[in-house]
Amino acid sequence: MIQTVTVTAGRQGLMEFTHEVSRIVADSGIGDGLCTLFIQHTSASLTIQENADPSAARDLEAWLLRLVPQGDALFTHTAEGPDDMPSHIKAALTATTLSIPFTDGRLALGTWQGIYLWEHRLRPRPRRVVVHLAP
Amino acid sequence: MIQTVTVTAGRQGLMEFTHEVSRIVADSGIGDGLCTLFIQHTSASLTIQENADPSAARDLEAWLLRLVPQGDALFTHTAEGPDDMPSHIKAALTATTLSIPFTDGRLALGTWQGIYLWEHRLRPRPRRVVVHLAP
Amino acid sequence: MIQTVTVTAGRQGLMEFTHEVSRIVADSGIGDGLCTLFIQHTSASLTIQENADPSAARDLEAWLLRLVPQGDALFTHTAEGPDDMPSHIKAALTATTLSIPFTDGRLALGTWQGIYLWEHRLRPRPRRVVVHLAP
Repeated sequence: MIQTVTVTAGRQGLMEFTHEVSRIVADSGIGDGLCTLFIQHTSASLTIQENADPSAARDLEAWLLRLVPQGDALFTHTAEGPDDMPSHIKAALTATTLSIPFTDGRLALGTWQGIYLWEHRLRPRPRRVVVHLAP
Repeated sequence: MIQTVTVTAGRQGLMEFTHEVSRIVADSGIGDGLCTLFIQHTSASLTIQENADPSAARDLEAWLLRLVPQGDALFTHTAEGPDDMPSHIKAALTATTLSIPFTDGRLALGTWQGIYLWEHRLRPRPRRVVVHLAP
Repeated sequence: MIQTVTVTAGRQGLMEFTHEVSRIVADSGIGDGLCTLFIQHTSASLTIQENADPSAARDLEAWLLRLVPQGDALFTHTAEGPDDMPSHIKAALTATTLSIPFTDGRLALGTWQGIYLWEHRLRPRPRRVVVHLAP
């Protein structure tokens, strides 16, 4: 079963959308199986991170912004703005695709795990995530 | 088919558990298929790396420790200790999930590839890895 | 369905092979499903990146080469040459496996997404990528 979810972050950074994925899995009627997420963009990515304390996501974002700053003299791919090339690098260092098992219609996430869209552009846009479910 | 493996590293760093995964695949009775691993933690991760010479795993660990040192003034998520936030970052930069094809009940790993738990905390704890197998 | 593709990059860096994967998916006769790629090497990796403007791939490569330079005094795993250990690190920071949904025999890639082999060694060698398809 394949469907697409559109997620829009309010700003550059991490935005949780575990709830949307959980609902698709629950509604599928497939009891046990594998849920694969694929983001159709190269300037945003996916990650599974701690969702108990929001400071973890904030620190993650701050650390990656410092590792891959805008305005690096190395960059030649700058036509779309100073946040374009850093976005591609951050996407390459994180995940384009995630596969999460589920049982009895529930994702087998750990106690403090949430599924996040990681928006790397300064002006967030709607991001399409393809969801594939199979037993 | 879904089951869970618990892996405990002796210390911070990489610990191979290829053998445990291979056994699950062999015992499943599914000849050809896909084996997906999902770690239910955000301060440990998964990787596939060279298992011929242990110096590769040691250098990997040393390099990542230097890239993401403890005590970074950027971190605000420090309630669980100085190794907490570096663990989340290292998990985000490596893999939470891996999918490995298998044929005739054997994982299609390359000659020198092994499956590793990457423990990022200073005090290792038992880590749960969910294993999903499908044809 | 499982088969193997061999890809050889002309030099260190990114080489697109979307076309080879698309053909396998189209020829499979499976309409909708999931295509999983697994690279059987630890000194080369996989990534999905922008394929519209080649400067994005060049900048990605240049940035990663600077992050993980040869000749780092930290490295002890140097028997195979100065590009050996950097290759393992770059592989660990990018992807060994990718899963891409497909519908009507076509990969659900975004408009500007391409599938790349990322060759990290100075002397490229033939790289085996296992392709698993399932509904």
